[in-house]
Amino acid sequence: MAQNVSKVVLAFSGGLDTSVILKWLKETYGCEVVTFTADLGQGEELEPARRKAELMGVRPEHIFIDDLREEFVRDYVFPMMRANALYEGLYLLGTSIARPLIAKRQIEIARQVGADAVSHGATGKGNDQVRFELGYYALAPDIKVIAPWREWDLTSRTKLIEYAEAHQIPVPRDKRGEAPFSTDANLLHTSSEGKVLEDPWQEVPDYVYSRTDHLEAAPDQADYITIDFERGDAVAVDGEGLSPAALLAKLNDLGRTHAIGRLDLVENRFVGMKSRGMYETPGGTILHAAHRAIEGITLDRGAAHLKDELMPRYAELIYNGFWFSPEREMLQAAIDHSQQKVSGTVRLKLYKGGAHIVGRKSPNSLYSEKVVTFEDDQGAYDQRDAEGFIKLNALRLRLLARREAR
Amino acid sequence: MAQNVSKVVLAFSGGLDTSVILKWLKETYGCEVVTFTADLGQGEELEPARRKAELMGVRPEHIFIDDLREEFVRDYVFPMMRANALYEGLYLLGTSIARPLIAKRQIEIARQVGADAVSHGATGKGNDQVRFELGYYALAPDIKVIAPWREWDLTSRTKLIEYAEAHQIPVPRDKRGEAPFSTDANLLHTSSEGKVLEDPWQEVPDYVYSRTDHLEAAPDQADYITIDFERGDAVAVDGEGLSPAALLAKLNDLGRTHAIGRLDLVENRFVGMKSRGMYETPGGTILHAAHRAIEGITLDRGAAHLKDELMPRYAELIYNGFWFSPEREMLQAAIDHSQQKVSGTVRLKLYKGGAHIVGRKSPNSLYSEKVVTFEDDQGAYDQRDAEGFIKLNALRLRLLARREAR
Amino acid sequence: MAQNVSKVVLAFSGGLDTSVILKWLKETYGCEVVTFTADLGQGEELEPARRKAELMGVRPEHIFIDDLREEFVRDYVFPMMRANALYEGLYLLGTSIARPLIAKRQIEIARQVGADAVSHGATGKGNDQVRFELGYYALAPDIKVIAPWREWDLTSRTKLIEYAEAHQIPVPRDKRGEAPFSTDANLLHTSSEGKVLEDPWQEVPDYVYSRTDHLEAAPDQADYITIDFERGDAVAVDGEGLSPAALLAKLNDLGRTHAIGRLDLVENRFVGMKSRGMYETPGGTILHAAHRAIEGITLDRGAAHLKDELMPRYAELIYNGFWFSPEREMLQAAIDHSQQKVSGTVRLKLYKGGAHIVGRKSPNSLYSEKVVTFEDDQGAYDQRDAEGFIKLNALRLRLLARREAR
Amino acid sequence: MAQNVSKVVLAFSGGLDTSVILKWLKETYGCEVVTFTADLGQGEELEPARRKAELMGVRPEHIFIDDLREEFVRDYVFPMMRANALYEGLYLLGTSIARPLIAKRQIEIARQVGADAVSHGATGKGNDQVRFELGYYALAPDIKVIAPWREWDLTSRTKLIEYAEAHQIPVPRDKRGEAPFSTDANLLHTSSEGKVLEDPWQEVPDYVYSRTDHLEAAPDQADYITIDFERGDAVAVDGEGLSPAALLAKLNDLGRTHAIGRLDLVENRFVGMKSRGMYETPGGTILHAAHRAIEGITLDRGAAHLKDELMPRYAELIYNGFWFSPEREMLQAAIDHSQQKVSGTVRLKLYKGGAHIVGRKSPNSLYSEKVVTFEDDQGAYDQRDAEGFIKLNALRLRLLARREAR
Repeated sequence: MAQNVSKVVLAFSGGLDTSVILKWLKETYGCEVVTFTADLGQGEELEPARRKAELMGVRPEHIFIDDLREEFVRDYVFPMMRANALYEGLYLLGTSIARPLIAKRQIEIARQVGADAVSHGATGKGNDQVRFELGYYALAPDIKVIAPWREWDLTSRTKLIEYAEAHQIPVPRDKRGEAPFSTDANLLHTSSEGKVLEDPWQEVPDYVYSRTDHLEAAPDQADYITIDFERGDAVAVDGEGLSPAALLAKLNDLGRTHAIGRLDLVENRFVGMKSRGMYETPGGTILHAAHRAIEGITLDRGAAHLKDELMPRYAELIYNGFWFSPEREMLQAAIDHSQQKVSGTVRLKLYKGGAHIVGRKSPNSLYSEKVVTFEDDQGAYDQRDAEGFIKLNALRLRLLARREAR
Repeated sequence: MAQNVSKVVLAFSGGLDTSVILKWLKETYGCEVVTFTADLGQGEELEPARRKAELMGVRPEHIFIDDLREEFVRDYVFPMMRANALYEGLYLLGTSIARPLIAKRQIEIARQVGADAVSHGATGKGNDQVRFELGYYALAPDIKVIAPWREWDLTSRTKLIEYAEAHQIPVPRDKRGEAPFSTDANLLHTSSEGKVLEDPWQEVPDYVYSRTDHLEAAPDQADYITIDFERGDAVAVDGEGLSPAALLAKLNDLGRTHAIGRLDLVENRFVGMKSRGMYETPGGTILHAAHRAIEGITLDRGAAHLKDELMPRYAELIYNGFWFSPEREMLQAAIDHSQQKVSGTVRLKLYKGGAHIVGRKSPNSLYSEKVVTFEDDQGAYDQRDAEGFIKLNALRLRLLARREAR
Repeated sequence: MAQNVSKVVLAFSGGLDTSVILKWLKETYGCEVVTFTADLGQGEELEPARRKAELMGVRPEHIFIDDLREEFVRDYVFPMMRANALYEGLYLLGTSIARPLIAKRQIEIARQVGADAVSHGATGKGNDQVRFELGYYALAPDIKVIAPWREWDLTSRTKLIEYAEAHQIPVPRDKRGEAPFSTDANLLHTSSEGKVLEDPWQEVPDYVYSRTDHLEAAPDQADYITIDFERGDAVAVDGEGLSPAALLAKLNDLGRTHAIGRLDLVENRFVGMKSRGMYETPGGTILHAAHRAIEGITLDRGAAHLKDELMPRYAELIYNGFWFSPEREMLQAAIDHSQQKVSGTVRLKLYKGGAHIVGRKSPNSLYSEKVVTFEDDQGAYDQRDAEGFIKLNALRLRLLARREAR
Repeated sequence: MAQNVSKVVLAFSGGLDTSVILKWLKETYGCEVVTFTADLGQGEELEPARRKAELMGVRPEHIFIDDLREEFVRDYVFPMMRANALYEGLYLLGTSIARPLIAKRQIEIARQVGADAVSHGATGKGNDQVRFELGYYALAPDIKVIAPWREWDLTSRTKLIEYAEAHQIPVPRDKRGEAPFSTDANLLHTSSEGKVLEDPWQEVPDYVYSRTDHLEAAPDQADYITIDFERGDAVAVDGEGLSPAALLAKLNDLGRTHAIGRLDLVENRFVGMKSRGMYETPGGTILHAAHRAIEGITLDRGAAHLKDELMPRYAELIYNGFWFSPEREMLQAAIDHSQQKVSGTVRLKLYKGGAHIVGRKSPNSLYSEKVVTFEDDQGAYDQRDAEGFIKLNALRLRLLARREAR
């Protein structure tokens, strides 16, 4: 297991776990450690991570702290939103979609500093290890990958804290006990799982929610908003043009207020087990609903139904960590091709956990009042065509029925 | 067009339109008319339809009034719910699923009374004409089908009312003017479309809703309920065993109170145009969420993902009127096969338009706390297996990346 | 039916049927007729069509004769070959793929000459009417379409010939009787159907074949050939670079000699009936086999399997006439994305009706002898990874089995 | 790795490799070994395996020799044939389909003799280890699995032979050198791979073929045969009713004579690499073609196209070893549902490597000469229906085109 490693790029949050990993990598591999801390909108200060790394002896030129929020939303979240991606019908893939970007940046840094290995703090039971490592291998096939949680013997929190104390790693008071659940956060969502959430019959306790206000505490007055789309991507809220990250942040604020985007789910992990998670995706939930609505008037049925049939596969690929795969890219090519005219404005009512579509309009609308109207349509549609349409669609069914009757 | 017809079975609501059709059929075809009125839970008295038919000269033995509510929910709604069917990601298919049952019963009656034709009151622009007629042809390939709206020249409401008055058909006062929208209702849903709904940018007016109380008027206190499932079908609410129709009615009551199941949608009709509809599916929306949740713990990933991939096709078949088709039956066979262990209990919180899953349990649960736990799992899962799993999943991606680097 | 038409572009072969149509259009609609005759490699002289049109009074500037062979193969046949498209598992879509090009050119000519209508000679039972007309409407939504076979009363060959004679249209001697079958030909294939082929239990008579030599008469000596591919398209045969049409013609010659590409098929038409056809696709059959083989070493599994799953839908779209549809274009975008590295050389043995792959090589090969070898692979693959791979793939199956055992 | 094992059921061919494994299991685990040798139609005597086992000290009651040919064809090959399964468009899955049956029988024996482990002789790079072990785990989730090729250090043939000689295991003369390729055989096919086949550009040498006569040596005279089907399964050849295994054997004889069913393929293994194999599936190739042909006249288009779309996934599941999975069973349920009327007779011409369909008939035929005929069909089909059919199919395309023109 202990391969020969000289320099490793570690995805480093600055928290207790990745601090222990930092130390453990040095001890175990005798290698130099390069830390990489990304701002994906998780809502934490990054400078403490820099100081922590410095304190632990990482050379300043080996400390990388990047604000990836715009890239994250523009190149990862938005392409996925174009697909209306939902894993197992419900999950907006907030964690899954962040991993490939982190992996990509780690590999870029590894190339820049001449590192021969990368490392992450994901456990051996989860999906994230797969997502990180498939990303690494897809971009740098010969990189060495170190997954401490699969290698070391710090198999309990007690051991981890003992290791930290033995190595002068400060242990915050609130980390001394077992955390009641674990979380992952970025601009798209916060996920929570484990411990108090492990019994899927028990309701998620109130204190687990961090990104949305409580349903009952949400305002009694609805908010009405509009979202403008251009070629499948949201570009403005209430008429105000915003960058991708700013737009998602804006929708997150709105979603937080109205308690939108909570999801209590038992899902199927790629590694073969079921797990129960709680997700909060306030802005993403609004965006998802709005994107479907703008597609409703601008996307042809053939394109829309093909998208719907491809979507579960596409979502599964992202969930399983195959963002950097030929088949995800093929599906993306198909999806993106469909979005050329997906422009216009959607109006939503936000209220007590719900993002309700109440209107949509577009210069590219395919909806034709003239054709669909109950009133006289002045020849836009000849009702007698329907007879032939039905007759030929029925022909094979009639031949079947005649066989039955034979 | 005017084929030789001697006896026709008409799907007869007793309303103005089908009354005019009844008369028109007699006038146009000189044929005997048999009326069929079904109780699908639309919430209207049926006896007035009988009296209306009698008044219009239909022979008593030619008036058929059937309570099909249990058959409707048990043999149509529930099988569809097993599939988690949503048309275009959102629509629970409330109108679509009722049509095949009506068609089937019409054909049975036609056989019983020796009729050679069937007729319905669906217009020439909609999906329902297709659903009715594909049903007729699939069950009786040589039946004659009369679709008055595609044949006659009563192309405006004024002409229709003139015809009614000329033929002593009573015109209710509220039918004199143009209805502001048109509706279809059954135990699963009420749909509304046309007129005031035709501009998809305009919010659906309050007065259009009939099956759900207004969002803002819903109770400030949530209700918690449980639904029990057996082999994929709901069998009890709050522990009380109920027949299919009674159960759906119970959920409808709960959904009405909490304003659950409203949907404002621009959808793609089978006949090629987009239309804007408003749907209220209170109980069905609760049921759909609950069924996904019980599957969450009882259905294997392979089965669940296959179901998700097949679902859009399945929903499209029902929407398009292909209930009685070999391919719908094939998909149903696959879906039903998956439901053998889908038993257990789901707990939901109903609040202000939302049906939120808060718990699920099952004697057949595949969720294993022992495997998934963050704690020591005592060997239930070997984290080192993950390395090999990732390595082999990555192999093809690495070979690709090496090719890129060549 | 008889709309107001002033100028119509007719797809005109110069044969008896389209000559009658030419006359009938003038008579029926009192309109000017523009003829369009395309060389798609059907192997017939086109100049006689010009003379025929002139004789029938078409103005010289209204006679269009175009050699579309290169465009046909490059922009229609090759994109379809990239998809490995087979309708119902077997049919290489030789007729289907030609129709959209003819439709497109007719619309271009209509725009050029200011015509308000187009017309074709396809019958009312076949797929071709659908393919032509969907093409017309997709490119010129308000064009008038005249389908004489659905409109006129020349419902038997006798009547057709009577009409021809009454209007001074020369009737070739061999057209006086009923043809024993009907054919369609282009550079990709010849199809035959009808009459002597209508009993699907009867073997196709020898005289029906026109594009391939008889199986038993094929050489006793095999030919070995190579085909070079670049980005998914064939570019050379036996090392000789050829244009798309020249390459397909070359493969047709080879296929003819070796009796390759015959297919006796009962297929399902879009209009709802089954028909029996005989197809000869000599070069296309070779190309299809070769393309799969070059993909075998250059295409990643994920891409290849996704293509295989999408293919039936793609083929169905082409068969049904939806070439110019958003969903066909979406699928094409996905397929084309996959072909970037599909370059290399395939070697085939042609013998007695078979096109057997015997070798393939590529600078982009993903096949790695080093990885796959039975010999010592020097660490290219760690067999122990397989254990973890299997264990995690098995995990959900084990959880299922434990449930069964409960 | 060396788990505590007391009794292991070994899939034992009696050849050198599994004899070495037998010994190695005893030596390494100190356990009792139970041998299981199956007759799947591989064409080898089984009694020598018994003697070999006895000689190596296996107790007589621990030697299991079963003729599984009928079960193999009836319960594995035939269900797969109903699906028209082809992996990667070409491979008839001859090896893949045998593995689950062997695994199932091993588990049955393990239960019978009270064994706690099973073992097989598949290598660590191939698919078969996966297929065996997924089968084991799906049927006995807590069974111990021993895969010697992944565990031991006999990593070259030289070491294997040294081990054999050191342990008094007889080494046949022809096994002393390296075999030029490795094979697997059963009633459905023989596969060959490795060594001389590892360069995919080199033609497969003549001496590799064992199940089919050379193409050029095949008779100059074609054979015509008929195959009768009942509910999707072949039941008779040339009118003679045969059991599943006897029928496949009969077709194998015919296929051998006419050199039918050879396939040179580069395929994608589940473990992530490409490999080149040569397959001979003489009877299976004939059966596959014939099954498609009988479906051609008896299966509705909707069912047929759904089958075609599901097939690649179904084939992939079998290839990857997921025979005993809920999703394979779901697909099987759908497929089997479609086969109820797939009965009738197919006529084929066998000639020089080709199995050409020349006729098909069925009491359940959906092919209607009356409907499809070019002649007057006496009202069986109204050509004017086609206009409405096309118009409504075109409607969305026209709306799209009008948008383009805006």
